[in-house]
Parts: sequence; C-alpha cells; structure tokens
Amino acid sequence: MTSEATAMSSVMWKVKMVGLGVVAFSVSVELLWRLLRRLKTPTTLNEVLFFPSEVACMEHIFSPASPNSHCCPLPHGEETSFARLLRFVLSASSSLDLCLFSFCNMDLSRAVLYLHRKKITIRVLVDKDYSIITGSQVGALRRAGICVRHVGRYVHMHHKFALVDGRRLITGSLNWTLAAVQSNAENVLVTEEPRLVQPFVREFRRLWADNEPSQNGPKGEQNEAHKLGDSQGEKK
Amino acid sequence: MTSEATAMSSVMWKVKMVGLGVVAFSVSVELLWRLLRRLKTPTTLNEVLFFPSEVACMEHIFSPASPNSHCCPLPHGEETSFARLLRFVLSASSSLDLCLFSFCNMDLSRAVLYLHRKKITIRVLVDKDYSIITGSQVGALRRAGICVRHVGRYVHMHHKFALVDGRRLITGSLNWTLAAVQSNAENVLVTEEPRLVQPFVREFRRLWADNEPSQNGPKGEQNEAHKLGDSQGEKK
Repeated sequence: MTSEATAMSSVMWKVKMVGLGVVAFSVSVELLWRLLRRLKTPTTLNEVLFFPSEVACMEHIFSPASPNSHCCPLPHGEETSFARLLRFVLSASSSLDLCLFSFCNMDLSRAVLYLHRKKITIRVLVDKDYSIITGSQVGALRRAGICVRHVGRYVHMHHKFALVDGRRLITGSLNWTLAAVQSNAENVLVTEEPRLVQPFVREFRRLWADNEPSQNGPKGEQNEAHKLGDSQGEKK
Repeated sequence: MTSEATAMSSVMWKVKMVGLGVVAFSVSVELLWRLLRRLKTPTTLNEVLFFPSEVACMEHIFSPASPNSHCCPLPHGEETSFARLLRFVLSASSSLDLCLFSFCNMDLSRAVLYLHRKKITIRVLVDKDYSIITGSQVGALRRAGICVRHVGRYVHMHHKFALVDGRRLITGSLNWTLAAVQSNAENVLVTEEPRLVQPFVREFRRLWADNEPSQNGPKGEQNEAHKLGDSQGEKK
C-alpha cells in the first residue's frame, strides 16, 4: 500500500469516527429531549371542579347541534363546573359504575339514561335509605332497566364516586343532588391516576359483590323496584 | 515527521475517538437509565383510605413510646385506616389548613391541638351551622387559640379537606366525625399531585379571605367563640 493510500485510509477512518460520534450525539440529544418533554407534559388527567356551579341551561351538553332550540329561560352554552362534570360522565364509551349516597339530580340522571340507551354498561350502588328519599332518581334508573343494588350494611353508604370505563375516577364531596350543585361549596376530583383509580375499582367490585340481591334474602333487586321513590322533589 | 511517528499519531487519534465515543455512549446510557427510572418509579404520594375503620385504640399514634400505658379497652397498635389518617394529619411540619363541613371527632381534634402546641400554623374553616352542633370540636380549637373562621355564604360549606404543609391534600367523602369513621362506607384520598393539590390551596385561600371576620360585620371570630358548641355528643 502506498503512503498516499495509507493517509487516505486514515483520513476516511477519522471522518467515519467523527460522523459516528455526531450521529450518536444527535440521537442521544433527541432521546433526552423526548423523555424530558414526556416528563414535563403530564398526560394523566387530573382535574378539580368546585361548586356551587353557576345556574345555566345544560341543553348544549345533550344537544350540541341545536342548543337553543328549546325554551329554557336560563343562560345557554355556559361551560360551568356542572357542565364539565356532565361531560366527564357522558365521556363513558364502555361502562359507568356509580356508587352514590344520594342521586336526585335530574340532569345527571338524564346523562345516565342517555348512556344506557347507547348500550353503555351501567351499574349503580346506592345507600339503602337515601335511595327512597323524595326526588331520588333511582326508581327511574331501575324502570329503564339499569342494574341497581342498594347497600344497607353501613349506617350510611356515604361514597359519591363514579368510574368511567374503569379508568377515570370522579369523586369528591358532591352528592348528586340539585342542592349540592347549585347551593353548596363542594369539590369534585377527576383523575386517571392509577394509584387513585384502582382502589376505587376494587372498592366498587367489593361492594357490588357484597350486595348481590340473592345475598340479601328473597327480595331481588328487580322485585324491590316498586319500593323506590321517583318523585321530583329534592332532599339533601 | 517519520512515517512511524505519523502511524503512531494516527493510531492515537483513533484511540482518542473510540474512547470519546465510548464515554459519550456510556454517559447517554446512564442519563437515559436515570430518566427511565424516574419515569417508572413515581415518588408522588397518592393513596386511598376506605372506611369504616376498625375500632381500635389510637394511643400508639400519640404516645409511640408507651402505647399500652393507659387503660383503654380497645385493641392496641392496630394500623387501621383511621390510624393512617391521623398519621397523615400529624405529619404537618409547618402548617395545617382545615376546611370542614363538620368536625366532631375527638381523636382528630386531639391531633390538631397537639400540632398547635408544637407551633404548627393552623387555620380552620367550618360550616356556619355545623360548627355549633352537639359534639363540635370547634369551640375547643378556638379556646386553644386556633384561628377559626366560619363560612355562611352557602347553604352548606360541604368540603372535607385538609392541606398539610400546603403540599399534601387529604380529601374525600369523610366528615371528621366518629360516626363517619366507625359506621359509614367512606373514602379519603391523600395526594401530593400538584394538579390536584394546587386548586384546593387556591380554594382555601379564597374562602379564607372571603370569610375574614371584619367582612362579616362587627362580630369578630374571637368574639363569636362563646356561641360555638363544645359538648361531647355527636351528630352527623
């Protein structure tokens, strides 16, 4: 090999090594940048809603195409805390599990019935005593064919949580009543953080299994539907 | 320069480049590994407690050195949900902000008074009506010199949350009563996730400012202390 060829080979080797170094460096920088971006832009849903919510018409949630086509005298199209709560409930695409001390709110009941008509699997656990108070929507849910079980083992089944598609948790101080939404200082957390969601999934499973109608004597859940109130008043 | 010197120089250059490549590669791998570990091992506290809690003596929480030195007939040393809740409250090292619909639980009151004696800054917001129910601990807190403000603007100030050192949130369905702890199905979330904690910090600040005694007429918070109940019964 001539000395010219040796020199050329040496130069090419250096060029290759430098090129390799540059490629390794740029790939490392890009990977680091992507990881840092992932660290800095959390994708897990974590949101808090506070109440009382401004009193507004919720028609735009149920009929986005024609929100003003009815004669409701309330402000229209407002994105209130309650509107956001309704949207979270309506975001269910496969299942909705409700575990509620009190369920009297007619807009929330309308949302649940709407999901039921869309073939979303719905299970409802309610407090035994509060499921029969004036204004309870539990009777309407049962009549529509939604599976409802009541919990009578505790002084109060005081939970107020919903699980959307088994991975989105809605929970807080807010009972699902009109008074709580419009008149009380309340909070609702919405989260997809697995370490918060999964314990609630297990708690729902436990309560659902523990309150199977066959375990509560001869009165099945469907047979008890007639005992449940469905009038329009409301009591906290 | 001789051809031997040129060859040596070329070899050394190659060695340097390879060495540089190895160092760059190892640094990149280490950085990636550290970042991945940070992604996969979440350090943010996220925990859920469920109630009712097993009935047990809480003396080991307050007197870890001599938990059995008193004559409480209940099981001792049990790590129940309530024991864990007490520990979270007692973990405050600088401040404790309470925003509670009802505060009748004597163990929780004892924990708050203990923190007050340790010079932890404590602020308490309570519902105007529920602060005077039978069994309310609000009077005891005031008499100890703890700053309490009542919220009367809403039908109910229905929150049940605590902020420990402004960065740890304790919230859920659980009112701070004995009945809730021992007899109800309840939940408490404990989290340090900033996107959940910060809205509650702002809500507390807002309610605290809105309910400054001077804004509520001539009756200051200290002057109203005599109106507040402090008997030992309990009402949910």
